[in-house]
Amino acid sequence: MPTIADLNRLDAAGFVQALHGIYEHSPWIPQAAAAQRPFASLAALKLALQDAVSRASQEQQLALLRAHPELAGKAAIAGELTAESRGEQAASSLDRCSPEEYAALHALNAAYAGKFGFPFVLAVKGPTGRGLARREIIATFRRRLANQLPDELREGLRQVHRIAEIRLNVLLDVELAFGPAIMDWAEQLGAISDDAHGLTCAYMTPAHRETAHRLAAWMREAGMEVHIDAVGNVVGRVAGSDPQGKTLLTGSHYDTVRNGGKYDGRLGILLPLAIVKHLQARGERLPFSLEIVGFAEEEGVRFRSTFLGSSALAGRFDPAQLDQIDADGVTMRAALQAGGHDPQAIPAIARDPAQLLGYVEVHIEQGPVLLERGLPLGVVTAIAGSSRYLVELAGLAGHAGTTPMELRRDAAAAAAEIVLLVERRCADGSALVGTVGQLAVPDGSVNVVPGRCRLSLDIRAGSDAVRLAAVRDILDGIASICARRRIDVEVTSLVQAAAVPCAPRLMERLGAAVERAGLPRFDLPSGAGHDAMALAGLTEVAMLFTRCGNGGISHNPLETMTADDADIAARVLLDFLRSLCVREAA
Amino acid sequence: MPTIADLNRLDAAGFVQALHGIYEHSPWIPQAAAAQRPFASLAALKLALQDAVSRASQEQQLALLRAHPELAGKAAIAGELTAESRGEQAASSLDRCSPEEYAALHALNAAYAGKFGFPFVLAVKGPTGRGLARREIIATFRRRLANQLPDELREGLRQVHRIAEIRLNVLLDVELAFGPAIMDWAEQLGAISDDAHGLTCAYMTPAHRETAHRLAAWMREAGMEVHIDAVGNVVGRVAGSDPQGKTLLTGSHYDTVRNGGKYDGRLGILLPLAIVKHLQARGERLPFSLEIVGFAEEEGVRFRSTFLGSSALAGRFDPAQLDQIDADGVTMRAALQAGGHDPQAIPAIARDPAQLLGYVEVHIEQGPVLLERGLPLGVVTAIAGSSRYLVELAGLAGHAGTTPMELRRDAAAAAAEIVLLVERRCADGSALVGTVGQLAVPDGSVNVVPGRCRLSLDIRAGSDAVRLAAVRDILDGIASICARRRIDVEVTSLVQAAAVPCAPRLMERLGAAVERAGLPRFDLPSGAGHDAMALAGLTEVAMLFTRCGNGGISHNPLETMTADDADIAARVLLDFLRSLCVREAA
Repeated sequence: MPTIADLNRLDAAGFVQALHGIYEHSPWIPQAAAAQRPFASLAALKLALQDAVSRASQEQQLALLRAHPELAGKAAIAGELTAESRGEQAASSLDRCSPEEYAALHALNAAYAGKFGFPFVLAVKGPTGRGLARREIIATFRRRLANQLPDELREGLRQVHRIAEIRLNVLLDVELAFGPAIMDWAEQLGAISDDAHGLTCAYMTPAHRETAHRLAAWMREAGMEVHIDAVGNVVGRVAGSDPQGKTLLTGSHYDTVRNGGKYDGRLGILLPLAIVKHLQARGERLPFSLEIVGFAEEEGVRFRSTFLGSSALAGRFDPAQLDQIDADGVTMRAALQAGGHDPQAIPAIARDPAQLLGYVEVHIEQGPVLLERGLPLGVVTAIAGSSRYLVELAGLAGHAGTTPMELRRDAAAAAAEIVLLVERRCADGSALVGTVGQLAVPDGSVNVVPGRCRLSLDIRAGSDAVRLAAVRDILDGIASICARRRIDVEVTSLVQAAAVPCAPRLMERLGAAVERAGLPRFDLPSGAGHDAMALAGLTEVAMLFTRCGNGGISHNPLETMTADDADIAARVLLDFLRSLCVREAA
Repeated sequence: MPTIADLNRLDAAGFVQALHGIYEHSPWIPQAAAAQRPFASLAALKLALQDAVSRASQEQQLALLRAHPELAGKAAIAGELTAESRGEQAASSLDRCSPEEYAALHALNAAYAGKFGFPFVLAVKGPTGRGLARREIIATFRRRLANQLPDELREGLRQVHRIAEIRLNVLLDVELAFGPAIMDWAEQLGAISDDAHGLTCAYMTPAHRETAHRLAAWMREAGMEVHIDAVGNVVGRVAGSDPQGKTLLTGSHYDTVRNGGKYDGRLGILLPLAIVKHLQARGERLPFSLEIVGFAEEEGVRFRSTFLGSSALAGRFDPAQLDQIDADGVTMRAALQAGGHDPQAIPAIARDPAQLLGYVEVHIEQGPVLLERGLPLGVVTAIAGSSRYLVELAGLAGHAGTTPMELRRDAAAAAAEIVLLVERRCADGSALVGTVGQLAVPDGSVNVVPGRCRLSLDIRAGSDAVRLAAVRDILDGIASICARRRIDVEVTSLVQAAAVPCAPRLMERLGAAVERAGLPRFDLPSGAGHDAMALAGLTEVAMLFTRCGNGGISHNPLETMTADDADIAARVLLDFLRSLCVREAA
């Protein structure tokens, strides 16, 4: 088995030969990457190969896709696959399709080729590398057939790179130290749900309590001292070598939205757990104490109490929340008591900031930024602040046939201008996003000029100055659109939340660890809220994002990531912890 | 009492003196109009006075409004009103307000003055000239307080002109020959409803049958031969002097929408009825036979069978409609039988076109065009054709915080562009209207980039070529917006209806009659459908529109018109009939 060092030592022809078969029938890719040697790591090699494809013409990219065989297609039946493709299709038992599955795949192959002009490419070994079920493959095929050409071209190339990643693991005999365990645990937790279908783990439900106990058990197996605190957080602690040393907190939440994803939140608990297990196996101790906290409640599904677990730890628990009721009229207090918790004890779980080194959270990105850049990891600069508004527009309803255009006061036309204003103003390149997520003409009729229209605004940016300037421009724009159109407007502020910056000191350490792994450091703001927001009131925070597959979808069963990404994130976090340990401890 | 001829003969100062008090404290208005004498009619004088105000500066217009006293205000209490204002406020018993009513009016006066900077002006003698109830005045005040300044300025000036119209009637001792009877009848029919509140007269309900019998009785009183046909149309016939003469049809529908207006449809039955009554009283006979048809069903509220009555008369009854069911599961067949009708006999009510001179329909405009132009009447050029579509847009849902602007496929943003495209394309000045009446992001959330959006299109024009060109441009525009934004789009055609042109021969005669009344002829297309559409398949059609008050609102209890407008419309229709009678009969 060659190593990266071996590959670096070969001449160009030898390098291309060694990587023969990594990219199906496409030696031009290793040829283009050869000049960039030496590679510091496998991660760096993978990026160089990806870059070769990204820099290629669209014609070459299409040729790369067309070099791939159809799934269970003619070449497979005629035994004309490459050894790699044959192995992959067999690993997903595509050679054992039922007649119905063959028929479905053949129809899909034909429809897909007709729509896109290239074959459907899917890394059938899947996120774990162990192979997808035929049922999953066919569902993915159906879903991607609905894509638009430019998106599907990019997705096809990403699958090609994932296939190459898996083939490189085989070629280089890579043993992932962390990824497989993290993926397995996430799968096991994902099977514990309030619903028969999909994953729902709402605060203090039976599934939630079972998840907490499973986490606690795994933490104990990894040698941690574990307790479940009064609010339901699962806290595992491993003492540092220095008895006077402070404590570094890490973790994330284990509750989910309804029908959510397996990695949102849970990754940030399971990933450091894999590290602790690894340290335990090696007999290695960090000088500072490390606590992994599985926060009980972040999503706010059941009681609208977002960031409940992390807020309580940060000393910001609001006892009034105990009176919140769920959809069945159960109070949070009663739900806690039924779960064996003492609501009175919650304020006491607040931590003393003097004892803390900081808080570091690993989280799946829940967006497409890393995916589109082909990067497994990103360092979070800040958790974006947000401004939310409800905008209600009142014009004058009128008959669609009898009201001349110039006499209209059309509330929907004003809303349309506002939607485009938000889009235009927030597209200026600074890390700013603006969304009109709700838009409706209440009781609209085909033949009535809209007298009313209602829309929501959601403006976010990592920088408060950037966000507030955009909000000001947008609200001014709304006022002038409505004045010109003679529309009465009512704007109600729903949320005004300041951005939470990450600590530069911790960001630098994380970024340095990313670079030591042979990856470029890439910084991005988090548009979504995370437990780190609540903990920023207590101690310095930092976050590491991992790439989110399937176009960046989250809060959805399609949320996905790979064992390889989990693995490199764990290696980076461990390196970060060790870097703290050398330079920061005691 | 002076006559128009007397006013024409006076010198300018005498003219201004004679019209003293017609416009409150504003002799500049008759001064400006004096130069336009001689006036052919009272209608022409009224238009000249209106024109003087329209041509004045906004400052003068505001001064005119400010010359009016507040309702039940300080001047009224101090006895400082003009004789005219005192009479008007007393006719509406504003001098007998309860303490609560005084308090309400004073609060409204203050709020209104604060918002607009001029007093609330309302012709308190109302549409009939007999005075509004205090309850109605206060409700109108509340409603108009919500208006925007430019609209309310125009509405205030329209009320000033209505006040002047009523004062001119007093000054010139005008006896309206037709208007009061038409308004009374409409009021009486408006009180017969399926609902306890508002006016609903749906096909073959008890209110509908009672309305039919009331109409039949009034027609008989006017000397007509009357029958209610198999579909429920009330048909009154008065034979012409020439036994060989053909028949002119007139009429409109007597059913209403839910909570509809008193004049929509009914005006077109009651107005010719007043004419027939007038001819009967004078012993005058037209050479051709005249039939007034009260069509049983035009709105399609109960069975979605729009134009049922007129289609049956035109020989286009579809027997499959008898199986339509209403919300209670009652078939149209059963409803007809319960009403004493024989559904089998409906096809036989079809008329022989060879016996017909044409069909002329008077209808309230149901829009603001005549109102905005200050004209009581308009000649319809065509009933607009319409194209309706449902547009479904599918982009990609995403997290509002984590999806960068450039990676979005926002279905609502595409919809916004479409809304503005429709507005822009249809605002080109040709008689064309385009409406997006339904617009919604299904299950939209504040924090989710819209993955789907649904909207309706309704494009209408009097000319099919104009409509189809606009439809083509809009559908092309939608395709290019969606291609650029990578949005999947599905466009479903709901309605494609050709325009129905009015017969130039009949339009000319109507227009000439309008001009003989001293009014300018004003032609406009009808954006709404009418019974004339169905009858155009049988014979030549024409329509006369009357001004619609309250901003042109219809299908609503606020639909309104004045006795004066009903009167001039009746005089014009009578003149039209007589002009046919001289030049067209036998």
